[in-house]
Amino acid sequence: MYRTHTNGQLRIEAVSNTVTLAGWVQKIRDKGFMIWVDLRDRYGITQLIFDEERTPKAVMETASKLGREFVIQVTGKVIERESKNPNMPTGDIEILVSELTLLNPSLTPPFTIEEETDGGEDLRMKFRYLDIRRKPVRENLIFRHKVTMAVRNYLSAQNFVEVETPYLIKSTPEGARDFVVPSRMNPGQFYALPQSPQTFKQLLMVGGLDKYFQIVKCFRDEDLRADRQPEFTQIDCEMAFVEQEDILNTFEGLTRHLLKEINGVTVEKFPRMTFDEAMKRFGNDKPDIRFGMEFGELNHVTQHKDFNVFNQAELVVGIAVPGGNSFTRKEIDQLIDWVKRPQIGAMGMVYCRFAEDGTFKSSVDKFYDEADFAEWAKITGAQPGDLICVLSGNTSKVRAQLSALRMELATRLGLRKPNEFAPLWVVDFPLLEWDEETQRYHAMHHPFTSPKPGQLKLLETDPGNVKANAYDLVLNGNEIGGGSIRIHDKKVQAKMFDYLGFSPEEAKAQFGFLMDAFQYGAPPHGGIAFGLDRLVAILGGQETIRDFIAFPKNNSGRDVMIDAPAAIHQEQLDELNLKTTHSEN
Amino acid sequence: MYRTHTNGQLRIEAVSNTVTLAGWVQKIRDKGFMIWVDLRDRYGITQLIFDEERTPKAVMETASKLGREFVIQVTGKVIERESKNPNMPTGDIEILVSELTLLNPSLTPPFTIEEETDGGEDLRMKFRYLDIRRKPVRENLIFRHKVTMAVRNYLSAQNFVEVETPYLIKSTPEGARDFVVPSRMNPGQFYALPQSPQTFKQLLMVGGLDKYFQIVKCFRDEDLRADRQPEFTQIDCEMAFVEQEDILNTFEGLTRHLLKEINGVTVEKFPRMTFDEAMKRFGNDKPDIRFGMEFGELNHVTQHKDFNVFNQAELVVGIAVPGGNSFTRKEIDQLIDWVKRPQIGAMGMVYCRFAEDGTFKSSVDKFYDEADFAEWAKITGAQPGDLICVLSGNTSKVRAQLSALRMELATRLGLRKPNEFAPLWVVDFPLLEWDEETQRYHAMHHPFTSPKPGQLKLLETDPGNVKANAYDLVLNGNEIGGGSIRIHDKKVQAKMFDYLGFSPEEAKAQFGFLMDAFQYGAPPHGGIAFGLDRLVAILGGQETIRDFIAFPKNNSGRDVMIDAPAAIHQEQLDELNLKTTHSEN
Repeated sequence: MYRTHTNGQLRIEAVSNTVTLAGWVQKIRDKGFMIWVDLRDRYGITQLIFDEERTPKAVMETASKLGREFVIQVTGKVIERESKNPNMPTGDIEILVSELTLLNPSLTPPFTIEEETDGGEDLRMKFRYLDIRRKPVRENLIFRHKVTMAVRNYLSAQNFVEVETPYLIKSTPEGARDFVVPSRMNPGQFYALPQSPQTFKQLLMVGGLDKYFQIVKCFRDEDLRADRQPEFTQIDCEMAFVEQEDILNTFEGLTRHLLKEINGVTVEKFPRMTFDEAMKRFGNDKPDIRFGMEFGELNHVTQHKDFNVFNQAELVVGIAVPGGNSFTRKEIDQLIDWVKRPQIGAMGMVYCRFAEDGTFKSSVDKFYDEADFAEWAKITGAQPGDLICVLSGNTSKVRAQLSALRMELATRLGLRKPNEFAPLWVVDFPLLEWDEETQRYHAMHHPFTSPKPGQLKLLETDPGNVKANAYDLVLNGNEIGGGSIRIHDKKVQAKMFDYLGFSPEEAKAQFGFLMDAFQYGAPPHGGIAFGLDRLVAILGGQETIRDFIAFPKNNSGRDVMIDAPAAIHQEQLDELNLKTTHSEN
Repeated sequence: MYRTHTNGQLRIEAVSNTVTLAGWVQKIRDKGFMIWVDLRDRYGITQLIFDEERTPKAVMETASKLGREFVIQVTGKVIERESKNPNMPTGDIEILVSELTLLNPSLTPPFTIEEETDGGEDLRMKFRYLDIRRKPVRENLIFRHKVTMAVRNYLSAQNFVEVETPYLIKSTPEGARDFVVPSRMNPGQFYALPQSPQTFKQLLMVGGLDKYFQIVKCFRDEDLRADRQPEFTQIDCEMAFVEQEDILNTFEGLTRHLLKEINGVTVEKFPRMTFDEAMKRFGNDKPDIRFGMEFGELNHVTQHKDFNVFNQAELVVGIAVPGGNSFTRKEIDQLIDWVKRPQIGAMGMVYCRFAEDGTFKSSVDKFYDEADFAEWAKITGAQPGDLICVLSGNTSKVRAQLSALRMELATRLGLRKPNEFAPLWVVDFPLLEWDEETQRYHAMHHPFTSPKPGQLKLLETDPGNVKANAYDLVLNGNEIGGGSIRIHDKKVQAKMFDYLGFSPEEAKAQFGFLMDAFQYGAPPHGGIAFGLDRLVAILGGQETIRDFIAFPKNNSGRDVMIDAPAAIHQEQLDELNLKTTHSEN
């Protein structure tokens, strides 16, 4: 062992002991006759002192040539510091070095290895191994480990069994795009990497393993939006002989345990809200309920006057911004510009100041009177001093726009507190959602989700209104988990595939094994999957998942550190019976 | 919840309670007026009773139509059994059923769902979800979970951090063959699936995360021998600021903990043996030391007579088979045939019976006398009643042959006891091994393994004799883990790549990021990786890894249950800029 202690370990009690430490040179102060070095490792920083009166000459000389990020090993006596540093756990002591070994020198790193670095995102990714030396990144990775250990120990104690499902499976063109893996031993054939272990966990339920979980990598070959990764990690769970209520209780238990164990936060029973209610109250199926600004639907108090914009709108809806009356005209104009940006897409925004003296002043004063505005205030819950922001138009679009505005305002007003946790179950999701592009309904969760009891027949007459036994767990405005009770009846599953446009042949080719399995005594079952990357980020009080992934990929799906993907050798392609057509284009 | 209790839970204390159970119909005894059903789930079996005098008529009628593997839910009263079954934990009670719900019927399963099944391997794999209902398979999966939990909790308590490394990495044609993944977003380029996270764990050490582990899937596109899987699981570990001794102690600790926690077996300090000694004493670098039959090298007591076969041999080597004198002539002839099989490849076998009365009788009596045989016995450790088996020829071949014979005999003699555990460190592996095919030296572990201190210069003069800081952990004749102290100096690594035949350009293209990293203060580091599939099988007292994998692939790399790999759609190939050349052949 290169060390007797770590650099985070020594305290005043160790004074006069001889110790050996190893680590990286964080900082050097060289006064010639005296040199101080901050020695860093994963556990902390310890100050070394080299002193021409007490340190051997050769050691002194080596010390004078050290540079940042050199790896060294030192032996010396622990002494009490003259000027203690109360901000460091090891701040009471320093090491008077008597032996120094240079284990490995270092080039000057391309950015500073400090809590706040001068390195940009690209540089930090290219030298990720140096970025990981920085405390925030390191602590994020350790934090992730703590969360996964807590998840595993909790579920294991509840009799869940972690089962590894295969990574080399079969491509199912439905849903997102698969990554595929050519098979050399089966020429012309391909494996696919799993988008999730969905069918395998259902087969485990058919196999009688009634409580399954797995922390598992999943893969989706999608064009990457910000903060999406082609490979991501799920906490994947499934239970048999359960109803929706059992799943909600079980995983509410898990989440409550994590909040308690990881964050020290006690949360009572999680509120529940139907999808319809969430859309109505927050314009969003994953509302952040840490703060108010709930939607107030204003059709009946706005469509009785001559304001055509509102009169022609399917939905007129507003929120009350707390203290928003203090916004300047310029600030409000900026808000209007903000909602008109193409990413939001609103045509405009009506506002109404609710002054402290109880009077109103609005951008539509010529259409409405004080009584109207008083109604608006009542419905949106506005108090004197607030600002009412109103959008109008197509229901689903205007809800999305106002929801975006609500989140933006909450962020600006500091209402999205990272250390406050507001979980929420959103239930009764629609079974299907309309896809504009293909002009047909698609499964909102996936084709294995069961409709609510008795609603199957609605599929023929009113498909958009069929509700599913599907639920999401929302935390602070992020979907951290989602799942459903599954179909376990072959006939229902066949009907669902049929409805979703699978021919019987396609259904059989892709999911025949699952439908076969349903014939041999499939139990009722359901489950949930959590997005681990996001869950960890949110528990860590942050929202950027990349900061919690050791070696993330960029938005082109590239690992810029190892420079992957890359061309492969012609012999590899030949062995796989493959040709790339790219160079021919 | 579909049940108040599991089928393994109820005891005599529950009598007269009303309970609800759910599960699969394991067995039915229908006497008309009375029907007994064994109800099974993951936790056990509970007997149900339907009795025309006490059970509602409609329930009785449904019960009479049940079949094997039907999924049912029952409510009833717990009653004391008249004839108790002491072999079942629930054998004191039965459930007098008052309500019965058929949750899902079942076709007759293609094989019996019993501990011993009538289903062949192929059928069981195709219907793996039914195979998993069988207790031995289910228990193996639960056992695997217990082992991984024990590993994680032990390492986590030792300050190891589990870090997820990426699955979409870069192909490195050195070593085994990679599975590759075409990149749609980077046309003409490919990711590779990791054969191990080797370079990433080394980068984590450079990144200062000085104790890393990960239980992780790895991939190798090799022609599959029996009991090899294209995807397999490793317990992958790495430590910084350590020497070989630290790694051995740490992971000896882990293994000892597993043996204690999982198997209740206490093992003292693990013995250590150099690679050279293992080859000499057991002909094998992963000797099973649960039993003797150590090799005795007999050159000097066999090459002084006129027996040309021995005189021309590089090595003459024998083992003493305990009690082997009792083998019949026919049994010995069968052994000779066994070693002559092409898989073993010996030219023949000389044997010598050591009778209880101290006399010898051999197949080479005309060349050797009693004094010679007494020497053979002394050297092989034969006792009266044993049989000495002697092979001769090229050293490395004859060692492999005799090692195979030793293992075969031990199996036949019942010396390989599944509940006895004999771990062993094999150390000082050669750095390089000669490859007949390419007529050059290859890295025996991998190109990142460091030579023993001071041996680097031997590379030029006597490469085959360079020893590495490399070690294997052997358990009961199986390599369960292997690792090494790594190179952490850029110049040494460059030299090693050069020696192994990488051009500087190739080394840079494939491993440039690692060599770059070594310039920024790489600490001394080393690690080990355990094959989880095999480790679990051995701890479970078995040797077939497939029985401990939920959804294994067959020897052609196929998942016969889901029928993968399979052809993919033309549009998928087009999007990937790929053409298969197979159909054109």
